[in-house]
Amino acid sequence: MSHLVDNLQYANWSEKIFRQMREGGVDAVHVTISYHENFRETVLNFEQWNRWFEQFPNLIFHGEWASDVRLAKQTGRTAIFFGFQNPAPIEDDIGLVGIVHKLGARFMQLSYNNQSLLATGCYEAEDPGITRMGRQVIKEMNRVGLVVDMSHSADRSTIEAADISERPIAITHANLHSWQPALRNKRDDVVRAVTQNGGMMGFSIYPHHLRDKSDCTLQSFCEMIAIAAERFGPEHFGIGSDLCQDQPDSIVEWMRVGRWSKEIDYGEGSASAPGFPPQPNWFKDNRDFGNIRAGLIKTGFNKAEADGLMGDNWLRFYEENFTPKP
Amino acid sequence: MSHLVDNLQYANWSEKIFRQMREGGVDAVHVTISYHENFRETVLNFEQWNRWFEQFPNLIFHGEWASDVRLAKQTGRTAIFFGFQNPAPIEDDIGLVGIVHKLGARFMQLSYNNQSLLATGCYEAEDPGITRMGRQVIKEMNRVGLVVDMSHSADRSTIEAADISERPIAITHANLHSWQPALRNKRDDVVRAVTQNGGMMGFSIYPHHLRDKSDCTLQSFCEMIAIAAERFGPEHFGIGSDLCQDQPDSIVEWMRVGRWSKEIDYGEGSASAPGFPPQPNWFKDNRDFGNIRAGLIKTGFNKAEADGLMGDNWLRFYEENFTPKP
Repeated sequence: MSHLVDNLQYANWSEKIFRQMREGGVDAVHVTISYHENFRETVLNFEQWNRWFEQFPNLIFHGEWASDVRLAKQTGRTAIFFGFQNPAPIEDDIGLVGIVHKLGARFMQLSYNNQSLLATGCYEAEDPGITRMGRQVIKEMNRVGLVVDMSHSADRSTIEAADISERPIAITHANLHSWQPALRNKRDDVVRAVTQNGGMMGFSIYPHHLRDKSDCTLQSFCEMIAIAAERFGPEHFGIGSDLCQDQPDSIVEWMRVGRWSKEIDYGEGSASAPGFPPQPNWFKDNRDFGNIRAGLIKTGFNKAEADGLMGDNWLRFYEENFTPKP
Repeated sequence: MSHLVDNLQYANWSEKIFRQMREGGVDAVHVTISYHENFRETVLNFEQWNRWFEQFPNLIFHGEWASDVRLAKQTGRTAIFFGFQNPAPIEDDIGLVGIVHKLGARFMQLSYNNQSLLATGCYEAEDPGITRMGRQVIKEMNRVGLVVDMSHSADRSTIEAADISERPIAITHANLHSWQPALRNKRDDVVRAVTQNGGMMGFSIYPHHLRDKSDCTLQSFCEMIAIAAERFGPEHFGIGSDLCQDQPDSIVEWMRVGRWSKEIDYGEGSASAPGFPPQPNWFKDNRDFGNIRAGLIKTGFNKAEADGLMGDNWLRFYEENFTPKP
């Protein structure tokens, strides 16, 4: 029995999208519930999800443990796991690591594009590595079972985090820099540091991370996965689609500048293309995971490898990394 | 196998007190973690308890469910359950009811001496009953499994809460007004409203709630329990000692005035006796529950009744009221 897991989405959630998850047979989704929100604001986002869980109990429920992915499949629903793209929710308080884990957070990025209290973001000119507080917070995240995510962090910080962390870390959504040299895609030495310590990377279908962006072909995407699998082992990869379905362009501005700047920063976009780019035609929404699976098989992956890439690898990772350290 | 449960303490917590809980064979304690603290301040109190759980894993652990009381007995530790004496932690946000329950809150008073957003406190001149928000919050507390506690509420509000609530409510710490006519002790019609709806009351050993205060005899206390048991049924009662061990007098001032007044309010004390009164000699700390059990037997309770009063009644109540409504 294989399981379908998408390890990163940040959609403009609605009943429509939850129904599409069911149509697509998606057993679990890791959803972003904070970009720049502080603790209290993030609690409002937990509250909003509680409302959706209460409103749509036949479609979705709160996923906390690997067993919830199996429960989702058994009961025909989608388990929703929570994560943060920035450590803003823990503010300057290490005690909040345990609190947010208790509330359900399972992934937290140590930095988002910029320098944080913990690590450096991928848009900074200098990367001094993991900070003093960062080392303490990684230890605490390891203790409680909150996974370190370095998707938007700079290279040195990412490699140090992979080495300092006593449990595997993740890059929830990115692609190979050697395939598409976007700032957010990861160089081989970064992917190696993460995977050789047991970590995982989720492949992104956000157009700015794709070769030829919105025009990227499924074949090219799957060939990139084949290269990654050959170099680092297929068991270290999954999907982290970064699907931002139905979001207005104002949201990409919130993601990029939050409250840290009064000036616009276009991030991966540009002044002439400031908004969300269109999705490639082979992955518009949650109903299209079958296309990716078919592409993987066509590229030469066997069924077990495709099962792993489509969710079973993330399921194994959830199994090992969400519970407190024994 | 009987279990020893004290359903209300607010001590100045320390390793010494946790060791006394073990010496006294206390399986579970419901501890107050908020008087006037708002949500963020209450989270700091959850964090402090997480530190203690990490520091003293062989003495205490976080109790969330009735099964944790049994686990405590099996493993020779004390399960610590959380509660609030005031709805301050949920501020004006009904979504926080689910959040604090997820973090472990199991009892919440709807008002503390004063009018709150939800209900009237026992020191107000007028009691208009449960408010509009109060009705909504009771429903939400019922849904998630957060018990309504009316210990410091006024009579009409308490009777209305008992009737509105679809699950049993509690008075965690008080005594019979007919035995000791303190403002905080409960008249028979209040106790009847709570118990006839399946609710529970915990007997308090806070001297201001006792006949002859610090000089109250164990025999008198147990005779009061016998009267209550005869009138309302022994299965509706337990202990809620209100032990405030090792607290400085500044804490009783925090309990009484929080930040709501610049003037001193002496509550159950007075200008000449503003601080904590001394405990009666038969209940100084957690090692003295054996005295109460012996007193109950001497007063004529059989073993099963004494077991119920010393903890099994609370355990049954925990079993039925801490989980979400099916």
